[in-house]
Amino acid sequence: MSSVIGVDIGGTQMRAARFNSGLEMIERASRPTLGEQGVDSIVARLIELIEQVAPEDPSELAGIGVGAPGPLDPDAGIIRTPPNIPFHHTPLVDILHDALHVPVLLDNDANLAALAEHRLGAGQGTQNMVYLTLSTGLGSGLILNGELYRGRGQAGEAGFTIIAADHPASGPEQHGYAEFVASGTAIARRATEAVQAGKQTTLAELDTITGEDVANAAEAGDPVAQTIIRETGRYAGILIASLSMLLQPDCFVLGGSVTQIGDRLFEPMHEALREFAIDPVFYEGIDIRQAALGDDVGLYGAAALALGYGG
Amino acid sequence: MSSVIGVDIGGTQMRAARFNSGLEMIERASRPTLGEQGVDSIVARLIELIEQVAPEDPSELAGIGVGAPGPLDPDAGIIRTPPNIPFHHTPLVDILHDALHVPVLLDNDANLAALAEHRLGAGQGTQNMVYLTLSTGLGSGLILNGELYRGRGQAGEAGFTIIAADHPASGPEQHGYAEFVASGTAIARRATEAVQAGKQTTLAELDTITGEDVANAAEAGDPVAQTIIRETGRYAGILIASLSMLLQPDCFVLGGSVTQIGDRLFEPMHEALREFAIDPVFYEGIDIRQAALGDDVGLYGAAALALGYGG
Repeated sequence: MSSVIGVDIGGTQMRAARFNSGLEMIERASRPTLGEQGVDSIVARLIELIEQVAPEDPSELAGIGVGAPGPLDPDAGIIRTPPNIPFHHTPLVDILHDALHVPVLLDNDANLAALAEHRLGAGQGTQNMVYLTLSTGLGSGLILNGELYRGRGQAGEAGFTIIAADHPASGPEQHGYAEFVASGTAIARRATEAVQAGKQTTLAELDTITGEDVANAAEAGDPVAQTIIRETGRYAGILIASLSMLLQPDCFVLGGSVTQIGDRLFEPMHEALREFAIDPVFYEGIDIRQAALGDDVGLYGAAALALGYGG
Repeated sequence: MSSVIGVDIGGTQMRAARFNSGLEMIERASRPTLGEQGVDSIVARLIELIEQVAPEDPSELAGIGVGAPGPLDPDAGIIRTPPNIPFHHTPLVDILHDALHVPVLLDNDANLAALAEHRLGAGQGTQNMVYLTLSTGLGSGLILNGELYRGRGQAGEAGFTIIAADHPASGPEQHGYAEFVASGTAIARRATEAVQAGKQTTLAELDTITGEDVANAAEAGDPVAQTIIRETGRYAGILIASLSMLLQPDCFVLGGSVTQIGDRLFEPMHEALREFAIDPVFYEGIDIRQAALGDDVGLYGAAALALGYGG
């Protein structure tokens, strides 16, 4: 039986797994992304990692799918300028193909997570689905008419849709992007601003404040932290309302560490969706589901890409 | 040769035209939408209007396409609650089918304009196209993967995507919708606000100010009017940046009376697009074109729908 390899290149870890043609994971491995620096050393470790999970008989390997942070060019197979990895216009598809002699496909991590959730996870059976991942940033991928939608190759950047062009704290770099107001970084920024403004909060005791600190403080009853989570959920709901009026999908699938906050985030999100939607058709019957595949979503998506499900 | 009829129901005029199967217009007619009030009288005038352009031999009529303002339900054939026409959950498709005994299809006017511009106008040959019409409001329609995209039936409302959630003048009804900051109504509102704030402008002499008044004053050199047009163009550019990062279409097609302002609107629009886009892939190679079909765009779109081009 033929197999494929899915590769997920993150800022800290590179992971690879072998899958059978039924998208079942057979074997997995991981290595640190950085460590010994330079593109050549990262690529060398990546090839070793792939070889580690490759089938003993090379003829059994049908292809490799690779997910990486954007911006990247999936058609040319080039990783352009990701913020956390020293790739710089690196032709990764050609490099891996030359080393491993099998078809290699590349796409960005959020697109592949969307593909995986649609094929195997929370979005199964839907025709149109918006995947959002709220973590440090805000990533997304679109399934439209049953297929991963790419536009001219880089579409699906809901994190950079502008929902708060006039946000008072948004400087010339942030532009009121959804990511600026509805992400883990947004939570941490609001907390820092609240402390600087002299608000009474347990967060004032911390040297640097993370989104997780704020979530924990909210859970422990800190009213300032609770307001911050509420505000973040509200902006997430504004984004969802906006996307719903534009794309009116069958469902939204929400992943990422920030969604672990749960109801404290989701309640204001649903309230904002109802408040901002011009008509109930933009929220009634539209499910908002939590992602189902957890940390392995990138590996499953990369394998699905290798199996040709990426369109 | 078989023919179809396209019908365009607007707030002031109902128009109908017969087309051959090559989408050439053969004959046209129009009537006022309102006048004698009530849904029944509007429907009676509409049927008379359609009969006026119908072929002499009824067997030659293959179908009727109808465009109307939303919100409406294209699958059920029901016009729901348009703001300017006294239809109220009116099952127009069933009514016309019962009266005229041919297949009747319904969709919203902006979707049909998008379809027409894609088939016959400025968007010909593109795979993914966003149509925006800036007039009193801000309408839109999406062509994705070569087909009109409808989501669950009502998608494509870019005018209600939220781009300025924190706009200082946006009350609880306006929600920072794109339509609130980038439409003819937005231009008129800004002018009224400027006059109320005591700004030096020729617009202060007018009792009520329309978007056209502001455009004329800008053309005549009024600096306040010029700033208002510039600000409106900037928000249109923010909307386009947002849509480009989400959908990365091959082109945007811009129609509607506000676009007649020309460069004074388009220059700040392009500037904002470049400022807000996170990467040149979201504006380089993406055409922004003016709509080509003028006032007849709704008739052409309705005929295209009747001919089965609506997917």
